[in-house]
Formats: sequence, structure tokens, C-alpha cells
Amino acid sequence: MPIRTGKGTISLPEGVYINSSAGVAGSKEKEGPLGKEFDIAFNNDKLGMDTWEKAESELQKAAVTAMLEKARLTAADIDVIFAGDLLNQCMSSTYGLRDFQIPLMCQFGACSTMAQTLAAAAVFVASGAAERAAAVTSSHFCTAERQFRMPIDYGGQRSPTAQWTVTGAGAALISRMPSPVRIESLTIGRINDLKVKDATNMGAAMAPAAADTLLRFLADTDTVPKSYDLILTGDLGKVGSDLFRELMLRHGADVSQVHNDCGLMIFDLEGQDVHSGGSGCGCSASVFCSHIMRRIEKGELKSVLFIATGALMSPTASQQGESIPSIAHLLHLSA
Amino acid sequence: MPIRTGKGTISLPEGVYINSSAGVAGSKEKEGPLGKEFDIAFNNDKLGMDTWEKAESELQKAAVTAMLEKARLTAADIDVIFAGDLLNQCMSSTYGLRDFQIPLMCQFGACSTMAQTLAAAAVFVASGAAERAAAVTSSHFCTAERQFRMPIDYGGQRSPTAQWTVTGAGAALISRMPSPVRIESLTIGRINDLKVKDATNMGAAMAPAAADTLLRFLADTDTVPKSYDLILTGDLGKVGSDLFRELMLRHGADVSQVHNDCGLMIFDLEGQDVHSGGSGCGCSASVFCSHIMRRIEKGELKSVLFIATGALMSPTASQQGESIPSIAHLLHLSA
Repeated sequence: MPIRTGKGTISLPEGVYINSSAGVAGSKEKEGPLGKEFDIAFNNDKLGMDTWEKAESELQKAAVTAMLEKARLTAADIDVIFAGDLLNQCMSSTYGLRDFQIPLMCQFGACSTMAQTLAAAAVFVASGAAERAAAVTSSHFCTAERQFRMPIDYGGQRSPTAQWTVTGAGAALISRMPSPVRIESLTIGRINDLKVKDATNMGAAMAPAAADTLLRFLADTDTVPKSYDLILTGDLGKVGSDLFRELMLRHGADVSQVHNDCGLMIFDLEGQDVHSGGSGCGCSASVFCSHIMRRIEKGELKSVLFIATGALMSPTASQQGESIPSIAHLLHLSA
Repeated sequence: MPIRTGKGTISLPEGVYINSSAGVAGSKEKEGPLGKEFDIAFNNDKLGMDTWEKAESELQKAAVTAMLEKARLTAADIDVIFAGDLLNQCMSSTYGLRDFQIPLMCQFGACSTMAQTLAAAAVFVASGAAERAAAVTSSHFCTAERQFRMPIDYGGQRSPTAQWTVTGAGAALISRMPSPVRIESLTIGRINDLKVKDATNMGAAMAPAAADTLLRFLADTDTVPKSYDLILTGDLGKVGSDLFRELMLRHGADVSQVHNDCGLMIFDLEGQDVHSGGSGCGCSASVFCSHIMRRIEKGELKSVLFIATGALMSPTASQQGESIPSIAHLLHLSA
């Protein structure tokens, strides 16, 4: 049974594991530093579909299919799937997962969704409500840009703080069956809003949420950053990562030796013209479900904090003068 | 600990209860048959705000505040809140709940969201991951119409199958502390898509999902419709309710004596010019969290199935020629 402690960290003493995972990505990600790590990397970001949105649905379908194949399971073996994406009405998830016929609970946490879906799946499995639960999220550069900012055809100049939405998806399978990757505990995030209003500076909006969740977790577990091999944020990018490290330092916790960010890892910031780095829920999903999972499985990483951050921004709210609330959910994984 | 059975029904043998709830609604709902049942009914649907979206956020805030007051608790007493709405990026939830600082997991299930948030909260509480969890959803006629169909200023003629999105919200508090309303079990829905493409006929799109979930539940529990005092669907409206009853009959289950629908209850279909009835996640949320909860608390209803249905439609998907996938989640409540 899960146990709640202190400021809300939920520990899973009886053992909940990630049994299989798959990360898929698009062509630009394939050319990046982690290009060879993805289970599937597509050369054409339309994936043979006639719209970008349908292509993003295919990313989720591909990630779930690959994850199931690696686990030698079929969709009928999954009791519930937690899914989400950045698009309006979670359409990549609903259309991408429609044919699997798995009981579905769509989650919205913007770019924090991979951690949110994993957290929900872990609690359902720990409680016995599900024997096997899955988590999947995606994003696509072309769908996100036209929904949140400008259609890419417009060719607008990108600001230096802007991040590049990753075309990718990640899926993971959670059960009580022991595997090399265990979910030790998790912390559900709460909204932080430091009144950032710039929709091209997500990192700044999200950094306080990452710090808030990590500080709550460290207090609950009575640990320090160097207790972990890696503290991995989702997609703070360069601007957000700098702010996050500074915020943590101000609270007396130096994360600089153990911190990395999926948005900094997935692209070559100098060579790939992505300004502040990668973003989107497909960023942390594809990096975590391939590269990071593999490193934990191999024992290269023994204790990892995965903190996916989300800017809960809405174009409608931005047009109405609102700031961007942010959130971050944390999972502690061990080898 | 929750126990899974058969086709996925999750029973909660150790007792999970709804300790407090509040339903709030707008002016048209106040004039309807349940007008006196709501905890708060606003005379002005803008709630003093300068935009409809901000007004909808206020509905969620009002519902949560009223629910907390009735339970004599503060926001700090709630371990996690599951929230959702129909708007893009769940903005009514994120902005409406921002100030409470409760750990938040946004859910998206379109009009099924009240059942989805209750289900997630029930499993978190049953597992021990949360001592007290809350569930809240909302909808608003003016925000939904302009997002999904036409701005109301346009004055377009409504089709006979169209439903009227309810301006309202509902919030509920779930814990292990015994109360008159117990959550016995729940069934998570899966996507049904019978290829309905008409965005003004949600009832037809959602009826198969309601039937699918109910049939799974009846099989798992070896019960029949008349085992229950009330089988309450969310917002199938008149067209969808007729289809739902017919679909159930075809599967040998006659629900006609025990079925009602929040979308049929909240408005006077003849007198209030709402065509096929009410809809929106605020419809089942406001009706369930006020009128229905009160009837169970009083013992007038002893065994209720609450099946909220959601049309997972996206204007973008509709523009791309897609059909409307639907889903329905079920909770079994007892006095």
C-alpha cells in the first residue's frame, strides 16, 4: 500500500516497477545526440498521414505498440492507460489510442504529463486497482507551434528564450512484477505562478514549479541532491535550467553536479538551431522512455529523480492578459 | 485495497466515502426544475469577471470553496485534487484552482470528467496515496459554445439534436471517513466510436459508450438494471437517452424503469428552449454534487449508478473529417 509522508510524497514500499518502455521520435530528434537511442526514429514527421495532428496520434500509437511488443503483451493485457498530450481536447491521445480499446483516463499536465501519467499508473497499480497500467504522452513540433504560437508556414522569427517542441512520444508499462526499474515514490505537484507572461519563455515559467516539487520531496525524504545519481527535469531548457539551479541554491540545495534536463539532452543546442533547447511532453517522454530507462536498466544510474515540468498555458488565457501557471510532478526511480 | 474483477470493475471493499459536495450553477439553471437544489446559483453568468472563461474559473472556485466550508476544512487539508473542464488546456481548472495550492492532477474526459475525477480520487484514497482527495469539474455555456461551435454573438440557429451546455460546477470530497454516501465500485470507460460526425448531436455519439461501460459493470457484478434505484447518465439528453435505452434493450437489459439523465433533469425541455437537454461536464457535476448527493444522504436513493459520458470531440479533428470518439466512466454509490 502506498504511504503518504510529510508534504505529500507518496512512497510505494511494496514495489511498483516499470516493466517495459519505448521512446519514439521524429527526424530532427534522430539527428540529435540521442538519435540512436530511440526505439523508433521517423524520417518523415508526417508519418504518412495527411495532417500533423494525425501524425502525432501515430506517434502515440507507435510508442504503445513498441512498448507492448517489448513486453510481449497485447492491448487486452493492459487494465488502464493514462495518456495525454499538448493538443486541445487531448486529441493525439484519444485518436491515437482509439483502436487499442484499453480503459482510458486522459491526463493534462502540459509538458509535465509524462510524470503525471506515470504517477497515476503507479498509484493504480500499487493499490491493486490495476494489475498492469500504461502511461503515454506525445508532442509534435508542427501541431504545437500552430496551436500555441504561429503556424510554421508563417516563418516567424523565434525568440532566444524559445524552445523547440520535440516531435516524439514515450510509453511505459507499470506493474507489480519485479524489473530492473523500480518506482520508489512520487510527489504530485501544485501550481506555481510567478506571473511570467511570455509564451516564448516557458523555462522561466516552469523553473519555480520544479524547485517547489523537488524541495517538498527532499524535505519529505530527508535527502539532499547528491543522494541521487541524476536529477532530471523535463524540458526547462537552458534558460529554465539556469533558473532552476539558482532557485535551488537560494534554498540551500546545490543540484549543479547532478542535474540535467531532457530539453538540453535531446538536441545539440549549438548545431541544431533550437535556441533554449527542446520542450513538449514528447521531450521528456521520448528521452525518459528510451535513453534514461536503458541507463537505469543497465545499472549506470542507480537512483534517479524524474521531474517533468508543465507550463499550463492557454492561448485564450494569454490573450486575456493572464500569466502562465506551472506545475511539476516528481518520480523517484531506482535500479 | 481495491479489487479488480472481470472486465475491469474496481471494487472498494474497505469503504471510500463522499464526505461533502457542492453544486453551483448559472442563471438559466437556477430557473430550471433543480434551481433550488444548488448550493449556489448565480444570477449573472459572468460572475463579475470580464471574460466568460474567467467566470468559469470562478464557478470551480465557488464549488470547491462551498464543498470545503460544508466539510469544515481548508484547502491545506486536501492531499490532491482531480480537476477538469471542457476548455482548451483545462484552463478553468488551472486558473480556478491556482490559489488553493492543492497538489493537482488535471483530467480530461470531456463531459465524463466528473465521473473520471471521482474515480481517480476514490482510487487514490482507497490506496492510501491520499487521505482526502477532491474532485471538481465545470462547464459554461458561453465558453463552450465559442470554443466548440459558434460564438454566441453570432446567433446561429441551433439544430433539434443540439444540447445546451450547462453553466455550472460540482465539487466533492472523498476520504475513508464514513459518511452516508459510499463509493462501492467503479468502472473506467474505454473509447467507443460509432463514427458519428455531427458536433451538434453529442447524445448519439455518447450513447454507445454509456451502454458499453454499463454492460461491462453489470457483467462484472452479476446484477441487472433493476438492482439499482437509479441509473443516472451524465448528459445524453433526449436523443442520446432514447438511443442508450434502445442499445441496452438490444443487449437484453431494460433500463427504462430506473434510468434518468442529468441533461434531462436540469432544464425544462419544453419551456427552456434547450432542444435535446443539458450537456457539459458542469451538467452532471452540478446535478450529482447537489440534488443526487442530497437524495442519497437522505436515504431516498439507496443504490445509484452514476455514468458520466464524454464526447472526446475536437474542433480540429472535426475539421479534418474525423468522427467523435466517446467514453463513459461509472461509479456505484450506496446509501
